[in-house]
Amino acid sequence: MSREIEELQTALRQFAQERDWGQFHTPKNLAAALSVEAAELLEHFQWLTEEQSRQLGEGQRVKVGHEIADVLLYLLQLSDKLGIDPVEAARKKMVINAANYPADTQRGGIRKNTGI
Amino acid sequence: MSREIEELQTALRQFAQERDWGQFHTPKNLAAALSVEAAELLEHFQWLTEEQSRQLGEGQRVKVGHEIADVLLYLLQLSDKLGIDPVEAARKKMVINAANYPADTQRGGIRKNTGI
Amino acid sequence: MSREIEELQTALRQFAQERDWGQFHTPKNLAAALSVEAAELLEHFQWLTEEQSRQLGEGQRVKVGHEIADVLLYLLQLSDKLGIDPVEAARKKMVINAANYPADTQRGGIRKNTGI
Amino acid sequence: MSREIEELQTALRQFAQERDWGQFHTPKNLAAALSVEAAELLEHFQWLTEEQSRQLGEGQRVKVGHEIADVLLYLLQLSDKLGIDPVEAARKKMVINAANYPADTQRGGIRKNTGI
Repeated sequence: MSREIEELQTALRQFAQERDWGQFHTPKNLAAALSVEAAELLEHFQWLTEEQSRQLGEGQRVKVGHEIADVLLYLLQLSDKLGIDPVEAARKKMVINAANYPADTQRGGIRKNTGI
Repeated sequence: MSREIEELQTALRQFAQERDWGQFHTPKNLAAALSVEAAELLEHFQWLTEEQSRQLGEGQRVKVGHEIADVLLYLLQLSDKLGIDPVEAARKKMVINAANYPADTQRGGIRKNTGI
Repeated sequence: MSREIEELQTALRQFAQERDWGQFHTPKNLAAALSVEAAELLEHFQWLTEEQSRQLGEGQRVKVGHEIADVLLYLLQLSDKLGIDPVEAARKKMVINAANYPADTQRGGIRKNTGI
Repeated sequence: MSREIEELQTALRQFAQERDWGQFHTPKNLAAALSVEAAELLEHFQWLTEEQSRQLGEGQRVKVGHEIADVLLYLLQLSDKLGIDPVEAARKKMVINAANYPADTQRGGIRKNTGI
């Protein structure tokens, strides 16, 4: 587990406790909230061209940073509730992805949807 | 920046490069993919009661771990493209949230939607 | 095709044309916007218990009605661009669902995620 | 209310009843399921260019039609549970949108995110 991630999770636990929010923060509700925040992040890009999305203005970059933060904060709270180490899970998933998408079959090709 | 997070981002950059996926990985597309993965995570919980969502079986916990990993991996790729440190952004957002949701006004109360 | 649906699609086509929005309304972008609106709809329910979600106050019901409208409006625009009749597609999908989820295997049971 | 929409809602009510799915179909859960289906629809477009999204192959068009159907079917079930006429709600929302986005201020311009 990353120390910085653990510190964030500890701070989030305290934040929720001070506000009596434990009752709302079931894994089901946190997964819904995470999904809502991911959509708010997407909203910033929905009418941009792909090229424009590479060149955000500073104001937009700050707003997008807040949405990225919100997604991460809910992801850490959900992981914490489920006892899953998100960084370790990500490392393991990369190994699975490497097996499922061998580099030599993907070059120059199409980006398929299955799996990841 | 967390060292573990940086290592994951470096590995992801190499993973995409080996597969020629850079052309697909614009911020706009990564934000869409992140949102799709967040929904796949939510899908595991959609028909469960809140109580059931606290008590996942081991098989389901593994699957949920994979979805959490996918969300984190896209979040890291998007952050990397935009030059945003997600851990630092999360820390700053917690300060903003603390100001917007003072603990003493929230206790025992309703969990509102605005902001976070 | 339902007459009421067709009338809405005609009005939406004119609405977009009067605002020069055709350039933004590619199927890809409309699918993203639809997904964002669906999340805004979900946001109203995310911290409610299932029981509370059955008993919305009048103010909340009006807001939820607006989000339902937004989802439908984007769904109709996307369908229109793709030349798909959404009502006919829904009728056909119900036949497929009936075959995939035979009533006698589902009673009293678990609601699985696969497919629908 | 559109007659075709009402017929679909009646068929959906019977479909759920025959499978004992009423217990799962709270507004909260239906809103989550709708959001998941909207993401499955988006998934088909996430790696396509906007231009490619205008020119789906026939196989892809069929799959996209199924996802459009799923979104509509959940939207109709949610509307039914809440006693909201989705077609009427969409008509009223178009009037609100016309007031919020006057045609003469939008031409040639940017497509903003606020509201719709």
